[in-house]
Amino acid sequence: MIVALAGGVGGAKLSQGIARAIDPHSLTVIVNTADDFDLLGLRICPDLDTVMYTLAGISDPVQGWGVAGDTTRTLQAIAAFGEAPWFRLGDRDVATHVLRTARLRAGEDLGSVTHGLAQALGIRSHILPMSNYPVSTIVHTDDGSLEFQEYFVARRQADDVIGLSYLGVEDAIAHPATIRALRDAETVVVCPSNPFVSVGPILAVPGMKRALDQSRAFKVAVSPIIGGNAVKGPAAKMMATLGHDVSALGIARLYAGLVDALVIDHADAVLAAPIGELGLRVLVTQSVMGGPADRERFAREMLAWVDDIR
Amino acid sequence: MIVALAGGVGGAKLSQGIARAIDPHSLTVIVNTADDFDLLGLRICPDLDTVMYTLAGISDPVQGWGVAGDTTRTLQAIAAFGEAPWFRLGDRDVATHVLRTARLRAGEDLGSVTHGLAQALGIRSHILPMSNYPVSTIVHTDDGSLEFQEYFVARRQADDVIGLSYLGVEDAIAHPATIRALRDAETVVVCPSNPFVSVGPILAVPGMKRALDQSRAFKVAVSPIIGGNAVKGPAAKMMATLGHDVSALGIARLYAGLVDALVIDHADAVLAAPIGELGLRVLVTQSVMGGPADRERFAREMLAWVDDIR
Repeated sequence: MIVALAGGVGGAKLSQGIARAIDPHSLTVIVNTADDFDLLGLRICPDLDTVMYTLAGISDPVQGWGVAGDTTRTLQAIAAFGEAPWFRLGDRDVATHVLRTARLRAGEDLGSVTHGLAQALGIRSHILPMSNYPVSTIVHTDDGSLEFQEYFVARRQADDVIGLSYLGVEDAIAHPATIRALRDAETVVVCPSNPFVSVGPILAVPGMKRALDQSRAFKVAVSPIIGGNAVKGPAAKMMATLGHDVSALGIARLYAGLVDALVIDHADAVLAAPIGELGLRVLVTQSVMGGPADRERFAREMLAWVDDIR
Repeated sequence: MIVALAGGVGGAKLSQGIARAIDPHSLTVIVNTADDFDLLGLRICPDLDTVMYTLAGISDPVQGWGVAGDTTRTLQAIAAFGEAPWFRLGDRDVATHVLRTARLRAGEDLGSVTHGLAQALGIRSHILPMSNYPVSTIVHTDDGSLEFQEYFVARRQADDVIGLSYLGVEDAIAHPATIRALRDAETVVVCPSNPFVSVGPILAVPGMKRALDQSRAFKVAVSPIIGGNAVKGPAAKMMATLGHDVSALGIARLYAGLVDALVIDHADAVLAAPIGELGLRVLVTQSVMGGPADRERFAREMLAWVDDIR
């Protein structure tokens, strides 16, 4: 049993790689839901959708999120009615959001809704929201506090992030299956997702960090920072403004004590020694993941290494 | 000022004809909402949408409802998730339903939501729901009671209708603007809509019939029955199973006392005399309406005749 902690695109890519490398039923992906929001009355869960579309093999290969070849007829009609959503809604996305919203309103919990949607798409791995309860990442900037999607999409990550909070997280309860999965896992993989707005909220859910600490699984993280930059998204800029070293070493310092090992890219080979001094085992490899086959290549290499050193 | 009472396709066609024949701002269409229902958490108002799309000039010219050239990407994706909606949802329809539902949930009333959508589509006539409050037509059959859309769409109007009720109508309040419009109207037109499930619910809303009775407007109905058949829909079959004469004369008997005049088709010219004996003035003309220009032709002819005899 492998458990992956995932945010959006990076987490989805590695999850797909793992699902291709092992029996997909043996993979459980615990997904960040602190980016979730309501738009036009629809409940939108960007990271759950990205992981779901990617594991279903239907995600847009260029942008990494959304469905490949999706159209935006409904969005265009909404715009014709004078509303200009700041969030791209593909027609297949709308179907996802409409069904999810209807089922949530009918009393189903987010985990069950997610399971139903994923099953219908033929996904054999388990996708779990970190919690059935709403948590919202709030981004603190010099301009005040912003909801995550406002910061991320509407303001294009232009603001310096000087702090973060996860609204509602104290009252959230970890999805029960996440705790069970962490307890039973042989390996836990912290995906190359943003440590502050993807992995951070998952670990902040009450009970999650303790379950991870108490798990006898081997825990390995993959650095989302390569050569001082994030593969995607605002992780690097956020590390800088939050006072961290923008490097795989900075990632190692964030995850030291939490994981046993860190995977870094060849570009950061020189950091292997200082990361090792933090008590982490280090795998240096080609960690930028291309298409599905390359994701599988990366997952196989990482998992073989873990089996070697565990 | 002209007020039209309308259901779906027939009411929409005549409303469009009138809007083309006069200053469109002078037309108020009071629309049946007793067919409204919820599907996948979305509030769907079939008659309001048909009138709105038709007045906006974007309705499907063949089927009469829905938007011309609309695609069903979202519906297909919903089906791929294992749900098979029994109601056709075009992508532009979905936009309408999503916006309406979001605005209703945000506390806007149906009249205001309808006004906003219609304005955005450039419609200059006034489209009013008969009430801001929900009313549901229930169809009584030998198989028991059916919700209207179940009878109409899912079971394809196959059941014999032996009775009807308008659930919630006692507690509904007429949209205030409908009462004002009826009071101020010079002419009230009862469109060639189903007397039982389109016009019936409108008249059943408390206050509506009295406002119509007290209005000094000239009141004219257009027979939806031509040559013993309905132009569209189950009106003829319903008349038969409810014990009415399936003819323009049967329509005249239903509306006698309510309207001053009835427009019938050449095919029913022989019924002009018996209808006259009921105290109604009768215009015999070509009453099957084709495209927009023909709808205008019909409206002009009817309104000129009304001006002559009022």
